[in-house]
Amino acid sequence: MKNKWGFDGFVVSDWGAVGEMIKHGNVKNEYEAAKAAITAGCDIDMESRNYKNNLAQLVKDNKVSIALVDDAVRRVLRKKFELGLFADPFRFCNDSRELKELNNPNHPIAARNIARESIVLLKNEHQLLPLSKNTKTIAFIGPLVKAVMQNKGFWDVEMPVKDSSYIVSQWEGLKNKVGNKTKLLYAKGCDIEGNNRDGFAEAVNVAKQADVVILSIGERRDLSGEAKSRSNIIIPGVQEELLKALLATGKPVVVLINAGRPLVFNFTADNAPAILYTWWLGSEAGNAIADVLFGDYNPSAKLTMTFPLSVGQIPIYYNHFNTGRPAENDSDRYYRSAYLDLSIYPRYEFGYGLSYTTFQYSNMQLNKKKINAQDQLEASVTITNTGKYDGEEIVQLYLHDLVSSIVRPVMELKDFRKIKLKAGESKTITFAIDKEKLSFYNQQLQWVAEPGEFELMIGASSRDIRLKDRFELVE
Amino acid sequence: MKNKWGFDGFVVSDWGAVGEMIKHGNVKNEYEAAKAAITAGCDIDMESRNYKNNLAQLVKDNKVSIALVDDAVRRVLRKKFELGLFADPFRFCNDSRELKELNNPNHPIAARNIARESIVLLKNEHQLLPLSKNTKTIAFIGPLVKAVMQNKGFWDVEMPVKDSSYIVSQWEGLKNKVGNKTKLLYAKGCDIEGNNRDGFAEAVNVAKQADVVILSIGERRDLSGEAKSRSNIIIPGVQEELLKALLATGKPVVVLINAGRPLVFNFTADNAPAILYTWWLGSEAGNAIADVLFGDYNPSAKLTMTFPLSVGQIPIYYNHFNTGRPAENDSDRYYRSAYLDLSIYPRYEFGYGLSYTTFQYSNMQLNKKKINAQDQLEASVTITNTGKYDGEEIVQLYLHDLVSSIVRPVMELKDFRKIKLKAGESKTITFAIDKEKLSFYNQQLQWVAEPGEFELMIGASSRDIRLKDRFELVE
Repeated sequence: MKNKWGFDGFVVSDWGAVGEMIKHGNVKNEYEAAKAAITAGCDIDMESRNYKNNLAQLVKDNKVSIALVDDAVRRVLRKKFELGLFADPFRFCNDSRELKELNNPNHPIAARNIARESIVLLKNEHQLLPLSKNTKTIAFIGPLVKAVMQNKGFWDVEMPVKDSSYIVSQWEGLKNKVGNKTKLLYAKGCDIEGNNRDGFAEAVNVAKQADVVILSIGERRDLSGEAKSRSNIIIPGVQEELLKALLATGKPVVVLINAGRPLVFNFTADNAPAILYTWWLGSEAGNAIADVLFGDYNPSAKLTMTFPLSVGQIPIYYNHFNTGRPAENDSDRYYRSAYLDLSIYPRYEFGYGLSYTTFQYSNMQLNKKKINAQDQLEASVTITNTGKYDGEEIVQLYLHDLVSSIVRPVMELKDFRKIKLKAGESKTITFAIDKEKLSFYNQQLQWVAEPGEFELMIGASSRDIRLKDRFELVE
Repeated sequence: MKNKWGFDGFVVSDWGAVGEMIKHGNVKNEYEAAKAAITAGCDIDMESRNYKNNLAQLVKDNKVSIALVDDAVRRVLRKKFELGLFADPFRFCNDSRELKELNNPNHPIAARNIARESIVLLKNEHQLLPLSKNTKTIAFIGPLVKAVMQNKGFWDVEMPVKDSSYIVSQWEGLKNKVGNKTKLLYAKGCDIEGNNRDGFAEAVNVAKQADVVILSIGERRDLSGEAKSRSNIIIPGVQEELLKALLATGKPVVVLINAGRPLVFNFTADNAPAILYTWWLGSEAGNAIADVLFGDYNPSAKLTMTFPLSVGQIPIYYNHFNTGRPAENDSDRYYRSAYLDLSIYPRYEFGYGLSYTTFQYSNMQLNKKKINAQDQLEASVTITNTGKYDGEEIVQLYLHDLVSSIVRPVMELKDFRKIKLKAGESKTITFAIDKEKLSFYNQQLQWVAEPGEFELMIGASSRDIRLKDRFELVE
């Protein structure tokens, strides 16, 4: 990197990583760790202190040349110089500017936009969503309704303020949204973890008084994230039991699932009429969720991960290779790559996500059926908003290299376009496919596109392919 | 292989594998599959018929040289010639010899020995096992007690007889073992799969009449094996519920678990006083199990796989690499490689297996603490049978290369010795450790042993290390 590629920056280890080579069994002690790391070109030892405690001795012992240490120091100092820190070491320390930036009124607006564009609508039976702003009584139930810090997720930036008043809880978001005529009821129902069902009765009682129930459940923010793993990714505790109790009231229940990753929630997926996957939405979580619940924002996000049916179905992903005997569907199991006890399909596939409106895909056209490596092919498709709401759709383009010298995935997302359509409106969009999109590393590690047939698929998710065609790359 | 290594045999594909290249996406059609396979050196296309249907045309089209086909044919014919099939094509077809071999009386003896040496004793509280042959009444319960073909497991050889009379069921094995004074009761209890609990009442009733209950549960033989996968490896159906019902009678219950692989059975492991893992033991299953139940054979087998606590704990194996932040135990979890909701340890570890007797390990001695690449080190250990039964112990030797240029597993089984000891007897055994046992492929793919320290562990399983020491390989 430093010699052949001419990199003039510096290399820094991950936190503690230099010292961790000892645990890995690659070096004997901190002295050897420091020697191995600096010799390999690591200029900064972040936190393990192996450089600080050993470099001087390594140089004295002639194990590390002073020139190597000088080079590491020079690389760091050069960047400090380029940043102007030699002229003014405090140029990036400006208390008044910091305070101004932290209170920049555009930031909550951006945070709210990002948050609501991240919410995935997983299910919406009988158009339960969006809710009417004239709803008389809403019961907002669950351990995450009034949570504050949870909305920030794991590895959040702590603001230089003591309280958390800048975080809009889901409860506050709902209050901000509805008018005085809507009565809001609250019950916690249960904790995120544990088996305590003592709060169920109150929650059911509150639900019975409401026209609609919103249930906010999921994981605690520190149940996923760095060094935070669960062997079972089912929604923890008795939260799905709480949903069952609420559904038994006969009231419509909208479920919000808060998590930093895909969870398993088959009871919810099978029984709740409406589900929004809200992830961890940050400081504007409450407002963003309220925007989506009441249709001030029509959800548009698509899943960027595959949601499994169970832990035993993992690993599962859309861009897998074919086996020699793939199952074509769930009836095709005899000596096929399939489970005896489970579907070959995930709960929710990569690219999946609903809208309050519906989109029709039509009139796919390829401007040519054969291209060469210098050409590009254009695939156009018309998308029509066939529902009653304005909305956005993320149109997805997948390719499959049918025959290749190295086995290629059954499909790969190669492009996508997010388009905004008013109710009834149509737009035609065009994807350009060139050699780059058809290329892969071959056995000689060369980046190549091989002549032959490709399948082109356009759809609303990796399983919901609406139109497909084939074209050929010729020499 | 054929040129550089001078291999003069022939290469045969797996069943259908030549044609399956099409599904893999590596070739376009059967014509191309045949061409690719024969060009790659595959002499026989097993079953996919791509050679039969395409080779002649490939030669006509000059895509495959006739010399290549001749070479493949020659390789097959040469082996036939060497086997004497040119002199007598029927020399291996001898009906009377076949019949004699199939009825060789030594075979059931060998099958019974192999079977009983394969049974793993997982648990034996209060020395419930071995059972007394004077037991008055035994209840033998479960869907596998009277099963016949199940004992053969998956991919068994079908004998040229119409009935299955040569397979000794578990019921027959028990009958063969006990005398006329022991009363045997039977109830099926439930099926292997499904939710039917109708048989529980009868099973409980039968259990109440007995002095001891033996419960035979597990998987159906075709729930594992080729193209047979379950996403959940818990003991299927209501079999563990049946155990719960039987335990509620207060009678001692011995559980036999029949399966072709590790299953998850936490209720059984936590609550049954005695567990034998019987796998699929073949034609002498019933006799072998009876031998172990009554102490005519003292179980000696050790697990050759790791048994997980749950599906979510997979992959789990004893010879893993260390992470940078390994957990030392189940209390050590903060920023460690560990689950928030599960132990770092498996249910039963690699190398685990009990005996009706106990073995003490003592007096480990290394004849030297430093060896060079020409040397060998001898590690001796004294094993004493400290229990009341004669028995066999599989003494296991593990090594750990503490520091190496390529990260090495935290431990690796490098040798083992199965020894027979009468009650009270001691034996000293010696393991020889030479360069070969310390070697691995380095970054240049050379097979090397690197100077440095090694940890040597001797124990009764990968977790039950009784003695350890260190030695050094010097240049």
